[in-house]
Amino acid sequence: MNIPQTSFPRVVIIGGGFAGLAVARGLEAKELQVVLLDKHNYHTFQPLLYQVATGGLEPDSIAFPLRKRFNDIENFYFRLAEVTGIDAEKNEVKTSIGSLNYDYLVIATGSTTNFFGNKNIEKYTMEMKSIPQSLNIRSLILENFEEALLTSDLEERKKLMNFVIVGGGPTGVELAGALAEMKKEILPKDYPDLDIRLMKINLIQGADCLLKGMSPQASEKAEDFLIKLGVDVWKSLRVQNYDGNIITTNGEDHFKASTVIWAAGVKGASIDGLHAECVVERAARYKVDQFNRVTSHENIFAIGDVACMNTEAFPYGHPMMAQPAIQQGNLLAKNILALQKGKQIKPFVYNDKGSMATIGRNKAVVDLPKWKFQGVFAWFVWMVVHLFSLIGFRNKAVVFLNWMYNYIRFDRETRLIIRPYKQKNKYSFESDK
Amino acid sequence: MNIPQTSFPRVVIIGGGFAGLAVARGLEAKELQVVLLDKHNYHTFQPLLYQVATGGLEPDSIAFPLRKRFNDIENFYFRLAEVTGIDAEKNEVKTSIGSLNYDYLVIATGSTTNFFGNKNIEKYTMEMKSIPQSLNIRSLILENFEEALLTSDLEERKKLMNFVIVGGGPTGVELAGALAEMKKEILPKDYPDLDIRLMKINLIQGADCLLKGMSPQASEKAEDFLIKLGVDVWKSLRVQNYDGNIITTNGEDHFKASTVIWAAGVKGASIDGLHAECVVERAARYKVDQFNRVTSHENIFAIGDVACMNTEAFPYGHPMMAQPAIQQGNLLAKNILALQKGKQIKPFVYNDKGSMATIGRNKAVVDLPKWKFQGVFAWFVWMVVHLFSLIGFRNKAVVFLNWMYNYIRFDRETRLIIRPYKQKNKYSFESDK
Repeated sequence: MNIPQTSFPRVVIIGGGFAGLAVARGLEAKELQVVLLDKHNYHTFQPLLYQVATGGLEPDSIAFPLRKRFNDIENFYFRLAEVTGIDAEKNEVKTSIGSLNYDYLVIATGSTTNFFGNKNIEKYTMEMKSIPQSLNIRSLILENFEEALLTSDLEERKKLMNFVIVGGGPTGVELAGALAEMKKEILPKDYPDLDIRLMKINLIQGADCLLKGMSPQASEKAEDFLIKLGVDVWKSLRVQNYDGNIITTNGEDHFKASTVIWAAGVKGASIDGLHAECVVERAARYKVDQFNRVTSHENIFAIGDVACMNTEAFPYGHPMMAQPAIQQGNLLAKNILALQKGKQIKPFVYNDKGSMATIGRNKAVVDLPKWKFQGVFAWFVWMVVHLFSLIGFRNKAVVFLNWMYNYIRFDRETRLIIRPYKQKNKYSFESDK
Repeated sequence: MNIPQTSFPRVVIIGGGFAGLAVARGLEAKELQVVLLDKHNYHTFQPLLYQVATGGLEPDSIAFPLRKRFNDIENFYFRLAEVTGIDAEKNEVKTSIGSLNYDYLVIATGSTTNFFGNKNIEKYTMEMKSIPQSLNIRSLILENFEEALLTSDLEERKKLMNFVIVGGGPTGVELAGALAEMKKEILPKDYPDLDIRLMKINLIQGADCLLKGMSPQASEKAEDFLIKLGVDVWKSLRVQNYDGNIITTNGEDHFKASTVIWAAGVKGASIDGLHAECVVERAARYKVDQFNRVTSHENIFAIGDVACMNTEAFPYGHPMMAQPAIQQGNLLAKNILALQKGKQIKPFVYNDKGSMATIGRNKAVVDLPKWKFQGVFAWFVWMVVHLFSLIGFRNKAVVFLNWMYNYIRFDRETRLIIRPYKQKNKYSFESDK
């Protein structure tokens, strides 16, 4: 891999998401060699992927080149590589570009879509965990409308204009809201010769309320907002299968739809090689102690979505969101430096800053630890928080400009079909992952 | 194709480039049915493709959704379709989504890369005529740098860091300048462990000067700018072959390079179906009279790059640039309306507003009919003209913001590998065209 072996201990970090970036920044310019591995050369700001999928933002404005983030740091190495395995006995990771030994290993690989073993659903539904996947969704929505124009078969046209989102968490709720706004403001203008009433947006949630992790107020208000926007919300309904045409459920309802977006579950993106006892099987997350050390390994850490730390407040691990990832990354950097100096390391205590979701213009829900509110002000808070969380001045400025434009003009202008999705099966983009 | 047959005559326009947009806008809301066909759902602002290829601009900011451009117009229909043939006897075009009859046909298909029949060059070099192609170039440049880091073979590394641009017209000159600026400002910071001196940028021109169509002052100054930026300029040198590794020429020079960008020629994107006598064989452009009527057809017009109108000033047709395309489109719209009213139609007279090319920051060359100038002011003029030529307020604003940022920060931040190019042969993106 052409990385010099120096007298400094080597920290290998797998993954440049929120967790990986936090630990890498915390270790910078210290007497350590830091190697960051990622299969993309950019960091993705995942909370805004749904806006890329619905034409509100350019993909480049929610991504940041990883090399640029670190190009002022000595002793730092980035390599574009997919990690294929870990050999804990040899202290070595195996990657698509060769092996690399480590003194400390930080696994920050995040999460991946969970299809719960259903191969049909995996094959026919769309995921939204990466920029290429979001661009695929954007293309598919527009391609389906183009196709709906061409058919004279009413049933076929209804199918092409029927959108089903499975999963009523923040991703599903935000995507459903954005699609509903496209239906309201954009698509009738772009497709005047289509009967927009045929367009349906269905949000299917297995639990008995939306936004399960948030407060009842937030959950109810979000549902209320969505219904007012014209979304059909289905609760306590589980999708059982999808064959590319029809979605069957555990109830009487079934849906004939060309576009199904699967936002019903994530699991840890764990890597082959560690003992089974290190991994929570169902969730595919690494069992870690309060210092984020993976079970029975002194020098292997897992942080963020891929880590499962059992605490009293979170018996099944922390929520798979940006905040625990960033906080664990920040602490782990300090702990690794402490270990180097033979000092005491500190246990992780999660500082829950709250959570939020946006449904549409002037519509969001915010749960702070001591204050829960919904509506216009929540929406404003959501915007400010997300704007400031973006990395880089240029990204902030471009996103701000787009949001202002979209707000004033009721528009979403980046509706280009750049990656024709319908050719997916033909070309089978591996790069989508 | 599901387009209603009305009592209004139908104008079918093939291509939503500068020419196609101009004629479609000129016909709007008149007593005509206008059908615009394009294989993309967006208009591409081709003069700025090189900035997408070199990470300076997002793809979405130089493209504009065609439906949006026309969504206030009655009697207008857009269809996403590839035109495969013309049947002039039946007054019908054949497309990927079925046939369509026309009363007037406007061919505005623009131009395509001319490989002059060399299959190897077509297979192994990169083109830059579309957004997907520009993104491929961006990815390839960055992927080659990532790969150069991994090899310990010096010859291989040199090859990966050797960039060859064939063709010294505006595209080649602008791309070479932008690459030289990446070498100067960006790549040394991003790849501190690579010896940036190994990076070479070669610009190969068959003619004895760059920017053949411009003034000798512009040509000399552009060459001067490029040499100062570290580009190796080769004049009166013709590329004969490229096998993916080595470029051979008609001289003694050969080049070992992983990236070759072919900007050495374009030809008209003519369509199958019209008689051979209508087409200038070598250039693949339609022979048109002074009203842009295709030879021996009363109701078929060709405008822009694909049209070849012989005039005294331009015995081989007008230059294949935006200005003639826009002017021909504007006039043709008026002429079609005149024909409808039984009025006299007007011959095309080209109003040459001049031409310009930019080489890098503060470096451009401008030839106006009565004034030729180079340097900082030329660069400023180039920016203003291009900014105002972009369609849409959002695009103008985002491009302006990026330019300001890039200028102040000496940066080009959109350097993400979103379409891994090295997988091209594996997946063979047809959508690149």
